[in-house]
Amino acid sequence: MKFKKTIVIVGSGMMGSALAFPARENGNCVRLVGTPLDRAIIEAIRRTNRHPKFNRDFPAGVECYQFEEVAKALEGADFVICGVSSFGVEWFGNDVLPILPPGVPVLSVTKGLQNQPDGTLLCYPQVWQKRLNELGKDNELNAIGGPCTSYELVAHDHSLVAFCGPSPKTLEMLREAMATDYYHVMTTRDVIGVESAVALKNGYALGIALTIGENIRRSGNPDEIHYNSQAGVFLQATREMDALVRMQGGGPNSFYTGIGDLYVTVYGGRTRKVGILLGEGHDIDEALEMLQGVTLESLVVARRVAEALRVKAAWGELRLEEFPLLMHVDDIISRHQPVNLPWNAFSTAGNDIP
Amino acid sequence: MKFKKTIVIVGSGMMGSALAFPARENGNCVRLVGTPLDRAIIEAIRRTNRHPKFNRDFPAGVECYQFEEVAKALEGADFVICGVSSFGVEWFGNDVLPILPPGVPVLSVTKGLQNQPDGTLLCYPQVWQKRLNELGKDNELNAIGGPCTSYELVAHDHSLVAFCGPSPKTLEMLREAMATDYYHVMTTRDVIGVESAVALKNGYALGIALTIGENIRRSGNPDEIHYNSQAGVFLQATREMDALVRMQGGGPNSFYTGIGDLYVTVYGGRTRKVGILLGEGHDIDEALEMLQGVTLESLVVARRVAEALRVKAAWGELRLEEFPLLMHVDDIISRHQPVNLPWNAFSTAGNDIP
Repeated sequence: MKFKKTIVIVGSGMMGSALAFPARENGNCVRLVGTPLDRAIIEAIRRTNRHPKFNRDFPAGVECYQFEEVAKALEGADFVICGVSSFGVEWFGNDVLPILPPGVPVLSVTKGLQNQPDGTLLCYPQVWQKRLNELGKDNELNAIGGPCTSYELVAHDHSLVAFCGPSPKTLEMLREAMATDYYHVMTTRDVIGVESAVALKNGYALGIALTIGENIRRSGNPDEIHYNSQAGVFLQATREMDALVRMQGGGPNSFYTGIGDLYVTVYGGRTRKVGILLGEGHDIDEALEMLQGVTLESLVVARRVAEALRVKAAWGELRLEEFPLLMHVDDIISRHQPVNLPWNAFSTAGNDIP
Repeated sequence: MKFKKTIVIVGSGMMGSALAFPARENGNCVRLVGTPLDRAIIEAIRRTNRHPKFNRDFPAGVECYQFEEVAKALEGADFVICGVSSFGVEWFGNDVLPILPPGVPVLSVTKGLQNQPDGTLLCYPQVWQKRLNELGKDNELNAIGGPCTSYELVAHDHSLVAFCGPSPKTLEMLREAMATDYYHVMTTRDVIGVESAVALKNGYALGIALTIGENIRRSGNPDEIHYNSQAGVFLQATREMDALVRMQGGGPNSFYTGIGDLYVTVYGGRTRKVGILLGEGHDIDEALEMLQGVTLESLVVARRVAEALRVKAAWGELRLEEFPLLMHVDDIISRHQPVNLPWNAFSTAGNDIP
């Protein structure tokens, strides 16, 4: 084996656990640390060498730790993967960043954006950088974005992702440690572009899934899938995502990464499910009741981006009419409005002729 | 009914026939004219008021003509829809353009590109414009692009398409005649952008479908669909299509239209089928044998674009390494090479760091 790093994965949810596969298969020492909410998962993995939601054993030699053992896990770490969900972002900043050994880089797979009162949308590496600055620590923050669902990574399906961070040297170290013949890694310094694009896609995937629910409602047949309306909303989603990624200061490569991620997310499970329920005519409260216990990052990001856009629109920095899809998604999930996709606004947005 | 135009559709294949639905539902006079190859279809429609491949009757009042009756059909036409496949482009130029009444605009739904010896890629309106110039005729050439499969248009699924052409006034007339509450029409003067984007998507959809076949081959299970690898190739396809649309001189709105079209085409039938067969390990000749009688525009456009890029590369105008997906598709279909997607080239293409 060529690479022999010590990689500590904090968060044993599906994505954190899935990353243990390429990491360990590359011959690295891999330590999977559960958050305080992951206790039962770590116990299950210790018993069975398998994550309860995967149908495949971990490669031999992945070590498991409960969170109270994190100090031991961090001994000699070359880098730390942050695998918490976006609901664990504060916790990671408060309970993990302070105990990181000096100089150990972070590679985060957590996706999301935080809106500020002035309409700025911060990605999580920016949020954590503030925390590191307060703590006076020097750890480098890198992140993973791109189309890669955990269960298909575990199945060794080919995945193409971007590692983003401030230092080409660190990015290359991370890439060498993690890339396999099925886990393909691009590297870029466009942290804000990648992190914005792959967070935004959650809100937009929900918008596309609405059409699936609408067609089921119309036909009464859950197996009747139409693609014209999905593709029409996908078209509008690419237009809005491109504008938002540019607004954030991101580059075109990151936009492509986000579009690939959008594609996979429409088929990806939780976001698709809530979009279909809403499209079928369920109110957001009903849909959440039906999906009890499911974490829905798509709702959070759509709300936050919509709030930020409203602030920016109030300042005259943009026109909300340029983002009819996102604003409609927010109306549905934040204001209990019925699904009624604004197709006229989509076709107007595509008119080149004044 | 608000609109009462006389619309002549030449070509009674699936897309030509599908456009009769919004056209007629809007209260227009609709005349569907078969090509010499469509004789049986026109006879079937006359008998049953239904296209043999659709599960839905035409709206009442669509008139049918065999091609020898075309002169009668053209009497009083406000515009002519060209609904031939890309294999009928020459025929349309030679047999239809010469008999068009003066001033009657064309709205073409035929998708494809023609490569010239110097590496230029002409879209069909450009090809036909040359013909009109030779004929000394003034008919305006407009075209339809965007995500819209015929059977879902017939099912009244929402579709978002672009009408492109030289004259805003004509485009608005066409839009008013054709747009319905489910057929949503953007208008743009970016003919080359729209026509390039929606032609290119055929070649790229084939590339994405290869991964479906590869996974079936690997798992032995035709129902095992993975989306990471589809999405990874989709990501690379957006990158290459954006570059090619820009190279052609097209604008961003047309690129979005092409991406929506790419999305729907992956699910769309013929191109998906040949991609899956190739991905499963069949040689192109075997795949064509298995799909006998199916028109495969995706193969034609991929070959033509690859040829054009080779010429441009020889002139130093671009590097073939920027288009690893398209060149691999061409290697498979033109040079009998086995499917082996160049993932390393994809990740290299996404690296921002020299």
